[in-house]
Order: sequence, then structure tokens, then C-alpha cells
Amino acid sequence: MTDKLIIFDTTLRDGEQSPGASMTKDEKLRIARQLERLRVDVIEAGFAASSNGDFEAVQSIANAIKDSTICSLSRANDRDISRAAEALRGANSSRIHTFIATSPLHMEKKLRMTPEQVLEQAKLAVRFARNLVSDVEFSPEDGYRSDMDFLCRVLEAVIDEGATTLNIPDTVGYAVPELYGNFIKTLRERVPNSDKAIWSVHCHNDLGMAVANSLAGVKIGGARQVECTINGLGERAGNCSLEEVVMAVKTRRDYFNLALNIDTQHIVAASRMVSQTTGFVVQPNKAVVGANAFAHASGIHQDGVLKARDTYEIMRAEDVGWTANKIVLGKLSGRNAFKQRLQELGVSLESEQEVNLAFARFKELADRKSEIFDEDILALVSDESVTAEKEQYGLVSLSQHSETGERPRASIVFTVDGKEVRGESDGNGPVDASLKAIESLVKSGAEMVLYSVNAISGSTESQGEVTVRLQNSGRVVNGVGSDPDIVVASAKAYLSALNKLQSKADRVAAQG
Amino acid sequence: MTDKLIIFDTTLRDGEQSPGASMTKDEKLRIARQLERLRVDVIEAGFAASSNGDFEAVQSIANAIKDSTICSLSRANDRDISRAAEALRGANSSRIHTFIATSPLHMEKKLRMTPEQVLEQAKLAVRFARNLVSDVEFSPEDGYRSDMDFLCRVLEAVIDEGATTLNIPDTVGYAVPELYGNFIKTLRERVPNSDKAIWSVHCHNDLGMAVANSLAGVKIGGARQVECTINGLGERAGNCSLEEVVMAVKTRRDYFNLALNIDTQHIVAASRMVSQTTGFVVQPNKAVVGANAFAHASGIHQDGVLKARDTYEIMRAEDVGWTANKIVLGKLSGRNAFKQRLQELGVSLESEQEVNLAFARFKELADRKSEIFDEDILALVSDESVTAEKEQYGLVSLSQHSETGERPRASIVFTVDGKEVRGESDGNGPVDASLKAIESLVKSGAEMVLYSVNAISGSTESQGEVTVRLQNSGRVVNGVGSDPDIVVASAKAYLSALNKLQSKADRVAAQG
Repeated sequence: MTDKLIIFDTTLRDGEQSPGASMTKDEKLRIARQLERLRVDVIEAGFAASSNGDFEAVQSIANAIKDSTICSLSRANDRDISRAAEALRGANSSRIHTFIATSPLHMEKKLRMTPEQVLEQAKLAVRFARNLVSDVEFSPEDGYRSDMDFLCRVLEAVIDEGATTLNIPDTVGYAVPELYGNFIKTLRERVPNSDKAIWSVHCHNDLGMAVANSLAGVKIGGARQVECTINGLGERAGNCSLEEVVMAVKTRRDYFNLALNIDTQHIVAASRMVSQTTGFVVQPNKAVVGANAFAHASGIHQDGVLKARDTYEIMRAEDVGWTANKIVLGKLSGRNAFKQRLQELGVSLESEQEVNLAFARFKELADRKSEIFDEDILALVSDESVTAEKEQYGLVSLSQHSETGERPRASIVFTVDGKEVRGESDGNGPVDASLKAIESLVKSGAEMVLYSVNAISGSTESQGEVTVRLQNSGRVVNGVGSDPDIVVASAKAYLSALNKLQSKADRVAAQG
Repeated sequence: MTDKLIIFDTTLRDGEQSPGASMTKDEKLRIARQLERLRVDVIEAGFAASSNGDFEAVQSIANAIKDSTICSLSRANDRDISRAAEALRGANSSRIHTFIATSPLHMEKKLRMTPEQVLEQAKLAVRFARNLVSDVEFSPEDGYRSDMDFLCRVLEAVIDEGATTLNIPDTVGYAVPELYGNFIKTLRERVPNSDKAIWSVHCHNDLGMAVANSLAGVKIGGARQVECTINGLGERAGNCSLEEVVMAVKTRRDYFNLALNIDTQHIVAASRMVSQTTGFVVQPNKAVVGANAFAHASGIHQDGVLKARDTYEIMRAEDVGWTANKIVLGKLSGRNAFKQRLQELGVSLESEQEVNLAFARFKELADRKSEIFDEDILALVSDESVTAEKEQYGLVSLSQHSETGERPRASIVFTVDGKEVRGESDGNGPVDASLKAIESLVKSGAEMVLYSVNAISGSTESQGEVTVRLQNSGRVVNGVGSDPDIVVASAKAYLSALNKLQSKADRVAAQG
């Protein structure tokens, strides 16, 4: 019989921990819907106890998603676990994921606890969680660098307390496939009650081997859950990438012999959504979802592909949702066609009011641009101001000019809590002048740590999408704005980031 | 005794085969110098027989580089091999790398040859090459999908003919570590004269496992050469990434027990140079060289890192050349300070005239921008017009204006073969208007397939670097331009791409 491999996506939790990748509740909900469409088995929606914002995000995802199990992370204490259970109350199927570090280094330097104290706290946490939900996952943080004997004692004890999934993280991305696979195998052989739980792998990509390590944990070690993220998003070099691990298992079914629930045709849309939301670009030579992943350049290869597709292709682009970049809509398209295209693109807006708002922007865009591509539509709806939350700042109009030999100048009108103000400034370039014109009135004092432009359909006729990352008092936010005029897109993105700086509460963050 | 692992870099050959990654001779030479600084053992500089441009690039690298072995690819025929030997004549140490496909699919569908014909041609090619140089590498293309018995016969035969390195490519990125490692092991056990040659691995990243596969070929299979590229550049999902494979071997010396020549402190500079030259961005969550690779975001992690660095770090950022983004030069810096900083950044300009040109641009920039970062300097010198070749098109001045409710307009003056012309146009945005203003006169008819902006030091005060990729009659070229004004940078990039479209000859491309 073919075993099933459980895909546990943690884009919204471990992925969101990347510096600069934080998302709003609405953004998380939109991504969760796309993960459900992908048929991900378990969605780790956040870390409910870390902030009110995270609590609300987990809660709204638990209420909205029906087909996937919704999970919240929590440290190994009663307060965190209670908050997680509360946030998950509305879910069809829910899981609490509790963790505590077990490596000597982490216990001594970070937790300042003895191994016996850690063991006791792990048991109490799992026992407490099992009284609230039936599906409990336990992770020994930095598990791969833990003492084997001690780790076996902890794992045996938490299974006795009712843990249903045991996840062994390579928290610092130190593993190599052979060693990690055998580590999992040894644990499963030595823990007497190991068959009472599902074993899971959680790998980081610091040495570029997260996917191979995860799959060694599955093949050699017998794990049956992989924790991963869209685009490999995550702290430092990121987590195991969902699209790579899924396509490896599918393409090499001869070797892995495992069944998957994933509907791979939604992979590319999920990748774009996560990239656009976080402002984290996907490099062209990224496996599966990079722009070049299915492109063939050299004469010899093109010839080979023409003669027999299999000579250079082991996967089909259409199987992961790549389609030709089609002109899908234009000036004359109606609201229903627009709405249907949104659905095909995997975007579901929360209310008819939001659809109307997006449609109005679409018409406005179609007036200025004759060919509307899928990417333009995704940019329209990922633009912050479509989402319904009341914003403090909003763009009204912008005028800018630059000329060789003169200093670029911009004049901008925007609203502050509904009231119009006008700012003017010069700058090193028209974008710089526009942002300085805003800052001359707002005086946020925020530092810009990233400015990035994604030309959405590869030409300057298309919309430009700009991401601005601001940092202030230790908080980092992203603002996204799109417009065919790159200067206007930049001003929108800057105002959007300022809105987020105003609205976001501080919060505690979690394990990697 | 600790074996040595040979690092064979193919950024300039297999990497350059990526759609859109083609480089000029000067760009290749600059990257080759950086690879020499990295202490790469073998630099595959190109495929000499594929075009006159590639021949000249291999030749100039062979003449300039002293410490690394210089290699040219060639198909398994006398003409290709003679051209390779001719291009390599000036090298201190040279290698010819000849290949022919050995998988049933490739032999039948692509080569339309019988296995016996392929075997014969492989022998003849290696014999011919060995008469020209003493260092000959042979690759059975699509080797990993070849019949084991046939492959053993071919490999035994070419060793008898004098091949000194045998490279086993996973051309389509289909391998998994355990199987690929055992494949190499079996070959080495079954080929009777296998100890007469060094075995090499060449993996592609289609399933995200190129690094792990390469290292399994080394650890399980006993290979002692890894073929790789900076940033994992290469067709489709790219090749094994040099920085990842090197740092894995270094960080896990306990497991691999192999010595390396590489001076890792030059890794980040090499990564930036390749990214800026090709316009291929490196995603923030890329291992080793991504902007976030050494960044820690979550509260728990930051706390852990403060308490003990090892809790979350397995490598040190400074070991791979990450340093704080320092203000290095300003308005008052002199020519010597500038020249010294260029050297520290690993840039060597070919002539004093080029240094003067770059220094003039530096002073011009310093007049407009008070803080000059390393990235600004790298952008200055990667700007096409620093290189001495005579260009057909050059920017003189640009004026543009956009205002809400009006159509953006641009007016541009540029030279065509030294004569000034003026173009005007409107467009969807100021960048679009500027490029249309150029195109209104040039009428190249080229299609823009990529437009990308890299903000160089993360803020809009810094220079913007724009890459424009144009396609015309099956040829793809990149133009790069930088300026604090993003509209000006875009116009420079477009003109630079047009210059390349004019000057580049067609050529044959190679295996993957």
C-alpha cells in the first residue's frame, strides 16, 4: 500500500518570521485560501499568543478554511496553549503545535533550564494541550543538535502524554541528507512507543539542502509529514520549499512511492501571491516557480526539446500552473468576466464591496493600458487599498519632473485622516523627491531598508509594482503599491507602509 | 590524509546559457578575474567553437588568468576541439572538455546515432584532444539516464584514450542524492581503469537538490570534482550553486573531510558581480548570498543570538564576505582612494583610461549624492559605458514629466554614431514614455522581455540600477544602466541593450 505524505505549510508562521515578510490579517487570509485550494493538509496559520494581530489572523483563518487542518504554534506553557486553543475554536479541524528547545546549547544559553526541567515542561504542555484539542504536535527545538538519549526520553514522554505528531527540526540548517535521515530512523527505532505518532521533518536551507534533508527524513527515516513554505520563505536562507518537495515526490514516485493530496496546478499562483504580498522576489533560476524554470535557451536544448520533449523536461510546466502569458481582459470586459478571472487566478475577495472597488480600479487601468495581463490583475488586488481597512494616509495626486542638469522635483497631495495636504520636495531622482515630499509632512522618521520594483509583465507598458520596507523602533513593515507610473507606484507603496507602521502592534516572535 | 575537492566553475559557460544571461567579452573577463580571486581550481570560460564572440572570450580569459586552469567546452568532433585548443593557447594551464550524449533517448532522438557510433566518436574525440593538451575532461551528456553497461564501456574506453577527468552530468535534474551517489559509486567500481581518472559531478537543480546530489556523488560516490556556478546560475532552475556546495563542505568538514582551495571571503562580491552583470536577481532567502541569509528577525532568535552566537548561526557572515554596508567614499575622495577601493571590491579595470572614466563618473555622482556605498561603486563600473568599446547609441539628456490626470511625457536627446537626435513620446508612465521616445527614432522592433530595477543600497537616495532585456530575431541581450534617477537609468539601460543588439553575432550554444 502507498503511504500518504502529509504536507504541513508554515508560510504564514515560519515564513512570515523572515525580516520584512510580515503580513496583515487580510493578506494571511488570502494566502490561506490559496493554500486550501492547493489542498495543503495542515496550515500553520500563526502563533496566536505572540500578539493580538496574530491571534486574530489565526482566528479568522480557522473560521474561514474548511478543508485543511488549521494549526497555531505555542510555546510550552499554559497561557500560550490556551490562546492557541481559543483562536482555533472555529476550525473544522484544529491542531496545537507546542515546542521547547532540547539541545544543550539552547537549554543552557537560551532557556537557562536543566534537561529535567525541560522534560517536565514538555510533558505538562502536551498534557494541557491534549485536554483542549485531540491533535497535538510537539517539536523539540534544535532537535537535530540534541543529545540522542535525552531526546528519546522527551519524545517517549510526550507520546505518552498524547502527542500525535512529533516534529524534528533542523533549526539552524546544519544537517546533510544521510545523517538527518538516519537521525530520524534511529529516533523511531529507539523510542518504544514511536508507532503511536506520525513523525515530521522541518528543515532550514542554510547549506542549500533543506529539500534533500526533508526527503531523506522521509525515505530513510520514515517520516510522513514535511513542514515547508511557499517559495522556501523563512528566516535566513528560508525553509524547505513546498513546490520543490512536492514536485520531487511526484516526479520521482518510482523512488518515494508516496501519495500526496496537493493539487499542483495552483503552485505558480500561490508562489506569485506570496512573492507579491511579501515583496520577496523569486529568482529566475528558482526550481519549479522561477521565471526560467521551464525555459530552454541553448540551441542544442531547443533542438532536443523539439525532437522529443523528454530529452530535457522531467516535469510539465502546465502541471504546476504555468500558462502562456495571455491577454485576458480589456477595456470592454464586464464585471462578471473580471470576477470570473479573479476566481480562476485563485483570488477571492471578501465582499462584493471589495469586488466593486477592484473592478473600478480595473476599469481605470484599462483606460490607460490596452492589454491587461493576469499579473496586472493580481497586482490590482494585492494593492493595499483594495482591502477594506480604514487607512490613515491616501494618495490624491502627484506631479513630478526631472531634467538633465536640474534637481528632480515632486509635488504630492495626499489625505491624512481624510484631510488633504500638499508636500513638495526635491531629491536625487523623481522617486526620492516624491517620498521626501511625503516625509516632509508626515515626519515618521522611519528608515527605508528596502525599495524594490517588480515590473509585472516584463515590459514598461505594464504596471510597476513597488515594495517599500520601512523600519522604525525595531518594527519592520512592507508597503506595496502598483501603477503604470513607477513614481506613483512608489508613492502609493510608501503611504501604504506608513499606514502599517501606524496600525501594527508589537509582538513576540517564535522559533525557526 | 585529507583529499582535495576540485571546484570547477561553469558560470561563464553553463551559467551563461540561461535565457537572457549572455555576457560580453569584457564582462566575462571581469568575472573570470573574480573567480581567480576566489581561487577556483578550473574556470570553464566558454564554448570556443560556438561563435567568434565565445572564442575571443575564452582566448582573452586564457591570456589573462594565471592561477586557475582555463577550460573550453567542445562537442566530440575535431573542429570543435581544434578551436578550443587554439583559444586556450595562451593559458598557463588549460583543459579541453568534450562531450557526447549517451542516454538512449538522447542518442536516438537528438543525435540519431547508434550506441556503437557514439562510443567510437567519444574515443576519437578524446584521442584527438589528448594530442593537443594533456588535461582532457569527458562528459557523457545525460549520463545519469544512460544504460549502466554501455556507460561503463564508454568511460573505460575514454580513460584508455587518455581522459583525465570523467564528469557524470544529471543533465535534466532528475537525480536524488542516494541514487546519484550510488550511481557514481557503481561506475567507479565497475570501470576497471577508474583509478586512472578524477571523477566529477555536474547536477542541475530542477527538483531543488543539485547541491545535495553533488555532495552525495562526492561522499558516497567518491567524486573529487564538483561543477557549479555562482548563484546557481544556469538553464531552467540552474546548476549546483558554488557558494552552497563550498560552504557545506567547509561547515560540515566533520562529515566530508575534504580540503578546498576556495577563499570564501570573495563569495559575496562574486555573487553581486554575476547578479549585476546578468540582471538575474538573487532572492533574499537564497542560502549564503541572499540579503537575509544571515539576518535574524524573530524576538526569540535575536535573544538567542545575543546570548550565544552558536544558538542560531552555523557560519559567520564575514567568512563569505558580508560586511556592514559602509560609507566608504565621498566628494573629497581622490583618485587613489577610489582606485584602491575598486581593488578591495575585486574590480580591476583594464586600462588607466577606464579608471579615469569611472573616476569621472564617481565625481559626478558624488556631487549629487553625499554618501557613496560599495554598491554604488560596483554599479558605476558595471555600467556599460565605462567599458571602452565604441557604442552606437549614447544618452545626452532627458526631460520627463508626469502628473495625475495627464499622460506622462518624455523628451530625450541621444547620439547615434556621434550625431545628436531628439525623440519625444508619451507613455503609460515616465519610463515607458522615455523608452518610446528612443524607439520612435531607432525603430529596432525589439521586444522587451524583462525590465528589472535593483535599488542598490535599499533606499531611493541610492542609485537605481535597471536591467532591460530585449529580444529580436531569436537573440536575447541585456542592457544595464544606473543613475539616482530611475527614469534616466532606464533610458541608459535601453540604449545599452540596443548597442548590444547591434554588435552581437549569432552563435551555437551547448549542453546543459
